[in-house]
Amino acid sequence: MHYRTLTLGLLALAAVLAVFAGLQEPARALDLKAKEYELKNGLKLVVIPDHRAPVVTHMVWYHVGAADEPPGKAGVAHFLEHLMFKGTDKIDPGEFSKIIARNGGQDNAFTSQDATVYHQRVASDRLPLVMKLEADRMRNLKLDDKTVLTERDVVLEERRSRTDNSPSAILSEQMMAALYVSHPYGAPVIGWEHEIKALNLKDAMEFYRQFYAPNNAILIVAGDVTKAQVEKLAKATYGKVKRVDAVKMQPRPQEAPPAAPRRVILKDKRAGKASFSRLYLAPSYNTAKEGEAEAIDLMMKILAGGSTSLMYNDLVVDDKIATSVAGWYESSGRDYGRIGFHALAAGKHSITDVEKALDKKIAKFIKNGPTQKQLERAKNSYIAEYVYGVDSQSTLARRYGWALVVGGTVKDVEEWPKRLEKVTIKDIARVAAKYLVEKASVTGLLFPIEKTKEAHKTTSKKRRKRG
Amino acid sequence: MHYRTLTLGLLALAAVLAVFAGLQEPARALDLKAKEYELKNGLKLVVIPDHRAPVVTHMVWYHVGAADEPPGKAGVAHFLEHLMFKGTDKIDPGEFSKIIARNGGQDNAFTSQDATVYHQRVASDRLPLVMKLEADRMRNLKLDDKTVLTERDVVLEERRSRTDNSPSAILSEQMMAALYVSHPYGAPVIGWEHEIKALNLKDAMEFYRQFYAPNNAILIVAGDVTKAQVEKLAKATYGKVKRVDAVKMQPRPQEAPPAAPRRVILKDKRAGKASFSRLYLAPSYNTAKEGEAEAIDLMMKILAGGSTSLMYNDLVVDDKIATSVAGWYESSGRDYGRIGFHALAAGKHSITDVEKALDKKIAKFIKNGPTQKQLERAKNSYIAEYVYGVDSQSTLARRYGWALVVGGTVKDVEEWPKRLEKVTIKDIARVAAKYLVEKASVTGLLFPIEKTKEAHKTTSKKRRKRG
Repeated sequence: MHYRTLTLGLLALAAVLAVFAGLQEPARALDLKAKEYELKNGLKLVVIPDHRAPVVTHMVWYHVGAADEPPGKAGVAHFLEHLMFKGTDKIDPGEFSKIIARNGGQDNAFTSQDATVYHQRVASDRLPLVMKLEADRMRNLKLDDKTVLTERDVVLEERRSRTDNSPSAILSEQMMAALYVSHPYGAPVIGWEHEIKALNLKDAMEFYRQFYAPNNAILIVAGDVTKAQVEKLAKATYGKVKRVDAVKMQPRPQEAPPAAPRRVILKDKRAGKASFSRLYLAPSYNTAKEGEAEAIDLMMKILAGGSTSLMYNDLVVDDKIATSVAGWYESSGRDYGRIGFHALAAGKHSITDVEKALDKKIAKFIKNGPTQKQLERAKNSYIAEYVYGVDSQSTLARRYGWALVVGGTVKDVEEWPKRLEKVTIKDIARVAAKYLVEKASVTGLLFPIEKTKEAHKTTSKKRRKRG
Repeated sequence: MHYRTLTLGLLALAAVLAVFAGLQEPARALDLKAKEYELKNGLKLVVIPDHRAPVVTHMVWYHVGAADEPPGKAGVAHFLEHLMFKGTDKIDPGEFSKIIARNGGQDNAFTSQDATVYHQRVASDRLPLVMKLEADRMRNLKLDDKTVLTERDVVLEERRSRTDNSPSAILSEQMMAALYVSHPYGAPVIGWEHEIKALNLKDAMEFYRQFYAPNNAILIVAGDVTKAQVEKLAKATYGKVKRVDAVKMQPRPQEAPPAAPRRVILKDKRAGKASFSRLYLAPSYNTAKEGEAEAIDLMMKILAGGSTSLMYNDLVVDDKIATSVAGWYESSGRDYGRIGFHALAAGKHSITDVEKALDKKIAKFIKNGPTQKQLERAKNSYIAEYVYGVDSQSTLARRYGWALVVGGTVKDVEEWPKRLEKVTIKDIARVAAKYLVEKASVTGLLFPIEKTKEAHKTTSKKRRKRG
């Protein structure tokens, strides 16, 4: 389990360090501990009282995502997420978000490989309204062919604009497909175009009826409320939704041990600059051996996390081979994670030069590991980020959501800093040697081309969020 | 639809040409036409009377293969094929093949992505016995945990010896996974090791009960019998097997249009010599537009079919860049085919030299197409092969099997030479430009390494036949 924000936190580094310098202030916020409860129908409740402002963040996390789609229906989880805004017997199509907005709130939703999430931020006194609305659409969604077909065009347009018009998105989609050979993480969350085109009312409703149920969801409420208040409201709203007996998840095929490195090469006239990308198959927090995910997180911070990292220092500052280099660990999956690098060549240097330099740096790091000082700095940076994250109610709620939706616990979330503290330089050298392995890698090269005879009727790719 | 032997026929070229030279003789055999019939329970019968010798070839083709396996159960189709020799109420475990042998016959079975096939060759007077035995195991298979677990070890050993001990087999398995991103053809027929290890009695029996049924099979009998005799025998044996109402095939996800070329690089100390491989995604006879598959077949014969081909002539004979180069079109799939090339470097030339030369040759061929003379020679060669194939009862039976099991017809098989005749040099240039496309390709490079630090606990790969 993990807090997605950590992996996305590279850009926030400067801000985080600033907060860390004045640690006394936000440290108080660490007292914001989650309280759990379970309704009779199986809905799990997590309440994080946070009385700093009279607002609440309300999130429903369904334990179902793109990786649970039936074969040939890639995209149905995300498609259904769109359709969830189409109304019920009580709410007219499109009214959901308008009601939230009229009440001064904001709402949105997103789909990932493992979860589909609906969330609102409102003044605390509007929480009963939000809970009533969200509980209503948990089982009472009303759809017809026309609505479904119109929304399908919206999704197709979303795919075109976010993936098919972006060479780097196409490449990333193809790299994911090459990295996850058997596991459904290899298919894009938004779906392949040809499969989206074939989705219909029946597909959406079957997915909905099967997986949208109180016993397949977690309700997370962070904000100016007490556990007792949320419990009472939840009983009166979600509590009335019947448990679905047969929430039957499709088994997910697991990967065979990687046998050979793969390369994906995309030449595209729309590409701005040649770029280098690398992915390594890795476990996630949910599947890693004890302490390994924490060690990978720290390794990636040291190696390629921002402009103080070893790789940035060598490739960008000292050797001037690259104009940028970044690395990350995507660690929130139920089944797998991945380690990634991305770099752009500087001056006359080719992408091959960049790749060679990066591989040399990785080999050196595997051999030597980090220094104690580098490790301490990485730990401090993450812990500051953790503390800092508490300042955002949304970040706080999402931490618990990401962890719990793939099988983690409240304790996993709250003891993460402690587990991070335990990681040693030896642990890091060990995960470097174990996971930064050529055989388990996919390399992606993107080249701009001046002109091409092909029409580039490309397909493809990627993570999306409801627009 | 197609006759597998064609794609495997490269080696037989010399023999075929010899036969072609004396065409009058085997041409007579072209009169061997198939006759069809369907039992009430849905079993399709194809009888090919062939009275040249008092023997029959008896084959049952089930419309189910590795591409129909449930997610995470890769290998169960092939595993079940092994288990089919384990006995019924009437036949003791292991007795099936012994009975056939005692009666002077031979039997075997094989599993492909689209079909599972059981076949025997016996004296014609033993046909009633064979039909009784095969009809019995269509629904009455008896298995227990012990038998299943023992056989699983046999399959695991088969995988180890044929795939995991062979770098080229591992590479080929990885290339298939890279070529078929969404479609189940990307998983090896024998299964991934970790999934084979988890197969059990329940998996095998569920697959058996669901897919082994008269209404999901084709019976092909070629040999010294009449249609009336086979019909009568079939009614008395297979005719007593009940139709299974719910033969429900899992939908197979189709591929998105390929977006970028992929490369798989395997370095292995067990590899003998560096080799170059290339695959292109292509339609099969079953899915190609009219005439396209025939054109691809002819194109590959001209381009890389044996030692008279253009590529052999250029790369091996003239330029001495390669010591061998071969190409083929795998065309028998229900959903997709693929075009393949394989080459070894000569002398001081590197695999990169070979790749460049091959790509140059392909580009030139796309531009210029074949000459009329080259096309005629390729047609004559295939038609000779087709005629020659009739001399083998097994080849004859398999032709119909491969075509019919993926949805083709008897007419498709018998009119193939006519359709081949219609292909023009323009058709060939068109399919070359359409399918020999970088974007749709996977390149595989195999390099021997002197020593390696890694233990090479590789996984992987490939087509297999019951041992």
